[in-house]
Amino acid sequence: MSLLDLINKPNDIKNIPASDLRQLALEIRQYMLRNVSRVGGHMASSLGVVELTMALHLFLDLPKDKLIFDVGHQSYAHKILTGRKEEFKTLRQFGGISGFPKMTESDCDAFDTGHSSTSISAGLGYVKARELRGTDEKIVAVIGDGALSGGMAFEALNNAGRLRSNFIIVLNDNKMSISENVGSMANYLGNLRTNPTYNRLKQNVATALNAIPEGGEHVANAIKRTKASLKQLLIDGMFFEDMNITYIGPIDGYNIDQMRYAFELASRKENATLVHVITKKGKGYRAAELNPVKFHGIGPFDCKTGESTKKKGETFTDVFSKHIIELAKKDDRICAITAAMAPGTGLNEFSAQFPERFTDVGIAEEHAVTFAAGLAAGGFKPVFAVYSTFLQRAYDQVIHDVCLEGLPVVFAVDRTGIVGHDGETHQGIYTHSFLGHIPGLTVIEPIDAKDVKRALDYAFSLNRPCAVCYPRRQTDVCFNGYERTDGYESMKAEVLEKGSGDAVLFAAGPAVWSAREAAAMLKEQGIDIGLVNLRFINPIDKETVIAMSEGKKVVAVTEENVKSGGIGEKIAEILIENKVGFGTFLNLSLPDAPLKQGSISELKAATHTDGASMAGIIKKTLKGE
Amino acid sequence: MSLLDLINKPNDIKNIPASDLRQLALEIRQYMLRNVSRVGGHMASSLGVVELTMALHLFLDLPKDKLIFDVGHQSYAHKILTGRKEEFKTLRQFGGISGFPKMTESDCDAFDTGHSSTSISAGLGYVKARELRGTDEKIVAVIGDGALSGGMAFEALNNAGRLRSNFIIVLNDNKMSISENVGSMANYLGNLRTNPTYNRLKQNVATALNAIPEGGEHVANAIKRTKASLKQLLIDGMFFEDMNITYIGPIDGYNIDQMRYAFELASRKENATLVHVITKKGKGYRAAELNPVKFHGIGPFDCKTGESTKKKGETFTDVFSKHIIELAKKDDRICAITAAMAPGTGLNEFSAQFPERFTDVGIAEEHAVTFAAGLAAGGFKPVFAVYSTFLQRAYDQVIHDVCLEGLPVVFAVDRTGIVGHDGETHQGIYTHSFLGHIPGLTVIEPIDAKDVKRALDYAFSLNRPCAVCYPRRQTDVCFNGYERTDGYESMKAEVLEKGSGDAVLFAAGPAVWSAREAAAMLKEQGIDIGLVNLRFINPIDKETVIAMSEGKKVVAVTEENVKSGGIGEKIAEILIENKVGFGTFLNLSLPDAPLKQGSISELKAATHTDGASMAGIIKKTLKGE
Repeated sequence: MSLLDLINKPNDIKNIPASDLRQLALEIRQYMLRNVSRVGGHMASSLGVVELTMALHLFLDLPKDKLIFDVGHQSYAHKILTGRKEEFKTLRQFGGISGFPKMTESDCDAFDTGHSSTSISAGLGYVKARELRGTDEKIVAVIGDGALSGGMAFEALNNAGRLRSNFIIVLNDNKMSISENVGSMANYLGNLRTNPTYNRLKQNVATALNAIPEGGEHVANAIKRTKASLKQLLIDGMFFEDMNITYIGPIDGYNIDQMRYAFELASRKENATLVHVITKKGKGYRAAELNPVKFHGIGPFDCKTGESTKKKGETFTDVFSKHIIELAKKDDRICAITAAMAPGTGLNEFSAQFPERFTDVGIAEEHAVTFAAGLAAGGFKPVFAVYSTFLQRAYDQVIHDVCLEGLPVVFAVDRTGIVGHDGETHQGIYTHSFLGHIPGLTVIEPIDAKDVKRALDYAFSLNRPCAVCYPRRQTDVCFNGYERTDGYESMKAEVLEKGSGDAVLFAAGPAVWSAREAAAMLKEQGIDIGLVNLRFINPIDKETVIAMSEGKKVVAVTEENVKSGGIGEKIAEILIENKVGFGTFLNLSLPDAPLKQGSISELKAATHTDGASMAGIIKKTLKGE
Repeated sequence: MSLLDLINKPNDIKNIPASDLRQLALEIRQYMLRNVSRVGGHMASSLGVVELTMALHLFLDLPKDKLIFDVGHQSYAHKILTGRKEEFKTLRQFGGISGFPKMTESDCDAFDTGHSSTSISAGLGYVKARELRGTDEKIVAVIGDGALSGGMAFEALNNAGRLRSNFIIVLNDNKMSISENVGSMANYLGNLRTNPTYNRLKQNVATALNAIPEGGEHVANAIKRTKASLKQLLIDGMFFEDMNITYIGPIDGYNIDQMRYAFELASRKENATLVHVITKKGKGYRAAELNPVKFHGIGPFDCKTGESTKKKGETFTDVFSKHIIELAKKDDRICAITAAMAPGTGLNEFSAQFPERFTDVGIAEEHAVTFAAGLAAGGFKPVFAVYSTFLQRAYDQVIHDVCLEGLPVVFAVDRTGIVGHDGETHQGIYTHSFLGHIPGLTVIEPIDAKDVKRALDYAFSLNRPCAVCYPRRQTDVCFNGYERTDGYESMKAEVLEKGSGDAVLFAAGPAVWSAREAAAMLKEQGIDIGLVNLRFINPIDKETVIAMSEGKKVVAVTEENVKSGGIGEKIAEILIENKVGFGTFLNLSLPDAPLKQGSISELKAATHTDGASMAGIIKKTLKGE
């Protein structure tokens, strides 16, 4: 019998003898590896915090106490320790448990997370609730050093410093966001890690003291001379102490006793306390320790070798990755920006070839956009490559700092549409709604590899704001059977099939693929519908919409976006304003609801946006059923 | 002849003898006061930085060098010094110069601002551009201590710390955002202000030195004992130094020589340098010094007395202000949150009556929303009162931390619709577009005082996310002539006029007022149109839309929102999906373009959304012209 068999509900870990905790950690890691290697997931972060999670569970009384993981993809051990060991086998699968904390999944998940840098804010909300209620539960936010570079974490620290009751912030410092962490905060933490006070004091006290003069009048000059030495004399964590947050650390993230002691110490303070815990991404699994970037988020892999078991073809990201280099070779004004996602967004190679023209700003999407605006105002042509869901963070900056001014910033909006297993918090299904209405922002969606290149060429030629949106998908769907047109300069949609029948289907981006399937299925049944790749989300090509709709029995629209604020509504308005005569309008976009996790095909089927479902609906409507 | 007569273009100030600068400052203040008292504007901030602006102009070579004001409402002296003295008379007026920096207005305005905390990011963009180009212009960002609490300023500082070339950040510290500044950063700056190093060193060096032991082995204990003392021994600005940003200060913001010296010193560094300048809001004008909150943004006033010359009636904000207190008396779970806007959003009285249940988080909208989510998850009922344009900052948090979870947070979205003289950066004309599509967020727009109360009652009864949106306007328009209905529980629109004719006009929020005017004008001309107050932006009451549109010759929609993503598109889709038979559809919402400054009536007329314009269009369409 394994120790893990004894872990079936929250707090069961407290019955495990201290001498067995090391073994339990091993079993948890093996269990995580066994399951995640099968289905994929966020491996490296979760491996890194097994002991930290165990120490927290030993320290806390869940669910009475509140534990909030920032981002949340490091919560696998937490899930296993809170009665979700069996369900863990369904991790990130359609109908299974989420890869992130979910309040609906367990009362031990105090807050839903997914995006970065939210935990301290949410924790402070819980603290305020506790103060008002007069109860005494412990409240802990666990935040990574990467997430700490996000502005809202600082906004929260700025407020945490005012607390007069206890709040524990665990800084899970693994020196990384997804790739190496950047910025002066990262440097500062690095100094804390490597120069514990004790050593520094011993080394520097003498120098520092000698340098301080006897009299008072030369003090100013003396300060100048001894500034460097005095710096070394600092108390650890003075940055946080200056924010009125007690600093405890650095603590070894694999020493459960030391962590528990630090948490106990922290829990006695009548203010916010930061416990600085040092961990290592991928800990305990050699392949992940050696390549934490690869194992940050990974598909199925072979546990023994660490090799991915699914071979990946060329993705949209790959195409962007290569083409942006070609463009940068031709135009030295092109610069690239990432918010801690160089590998994910395909900018690694760019950063190697054009280090001067590449900037990783850390997890800081807001800064990234306005920094890009500054670069553009300064005469350059920046591209900010970012996932759609994370660009939500910078909605205001896209309007206020780029589009009101018409500055030539290109947004390479990756992960537009359905993303799959990351679920609700990561779907790119609001892209049309939050970008499509911004005045002055051209929004385009290429549908295959060649098209991505053309879209980027066009975007950089514009000299005004432009978003090029593409999905997290391989480019293996090709449109070679179609007569392709290049309507970028004329801002035209592309008619893929004229159709000889009574229906037309408008689609954009990845939804064009399912639309094509629908059209092909209908063709087999003798129904020859029109098929239009809209290409432009803003502005929509009214002429083509009108021409292709006139006289049709059925006009249908599909997009991987919620209906509200999507292209379906925009096309409806075009039709109605222009008094286009036709029969039935079908908005086959995604329902106005959060979209859960699952494979893309499962999610399409569940929302009736797959080819077969759409073909069925269109056929039924044509028949008047 | 006055000194100001000699100031007609950039750098003219450099010809003024040093001995006359004090007089010039006086004349600039008088000139600002004379003009702003006539038209209204941001008085207190601009009065506070006259000498700082002069020192910067003496130090810089504009427009070659780049000067970026954060927020930008403190740029009046800058405008006067850069050839816009005459145009200053048209400040904030329709067709006049903006109250904020605008690149299109002058090449001395390096970046457009309006929202808070963007200047360091934009400045870093300019620095990167300079590095890539290999030029040597100076780049200066001027940021207030209030703006420093915004997360993106920290994201930028985190990146500024990595610079290896010069960048000057001027911290304009007046201890305030709009009201008293909050948070631990504000405390920290307060310590810097009041305890210059010199004094502190003298006082504490002895204590600190005595406390450090001879031997090495007791060092750890000694540190504990002397922690407090050692803290005092710190170098000024260590917080910034820890971020690898050189700190210079504090500097007297009314001593031009001292500031110039500090800027020169700062400009010799090969890294980012923060010059901490101490100023006072309202400086030089007693009424504003005594009441900087009132004089932050003010309408026309009497220069002699400081009294407002326009008497204000009850505003929507006033109604919210009073009613939220009534609600809070009845339900002790109701808490209120502001992001540094307690006076503007009407929460001052709440904060006085319920100090425990009130939180001012500083300029930190993102934190505010997620903090509210945490409070809601902890069992409370928070309301976040915020201007629509500033809620844009927290678009991601509204989705990710509130709506995906369905947490009962109420957003009191003030300044929805056209705001007037603040212009492009502050219009609330995207409210429907960025809130209307968020799954799970009920969005409602009350149209008069009584309605605001009812909307708030309803919002707090929902136990799920709800936004109550209202304009920056007086509630003097009343709908007493109409038979009012209460359709909140049933989520129904309100039919204000059934109409016996061939047209119906749907409207929401403040646009209902103009819609009513249009209806009244048409009635006088014998055209009796239907008039519907939509009340719900999400979800829209389909039944009423369909019933009121069926058979009409003209169906029109108006809202103080851009067309794209607005209710016009949503209604078009409802009509088309439900095959409603009618004639012409008119979307009389705002054009898809930035909306400049001006009075509300000027802006309505310019966009053909005023009553007369709409009546004209509807009549013309009915006549088939």
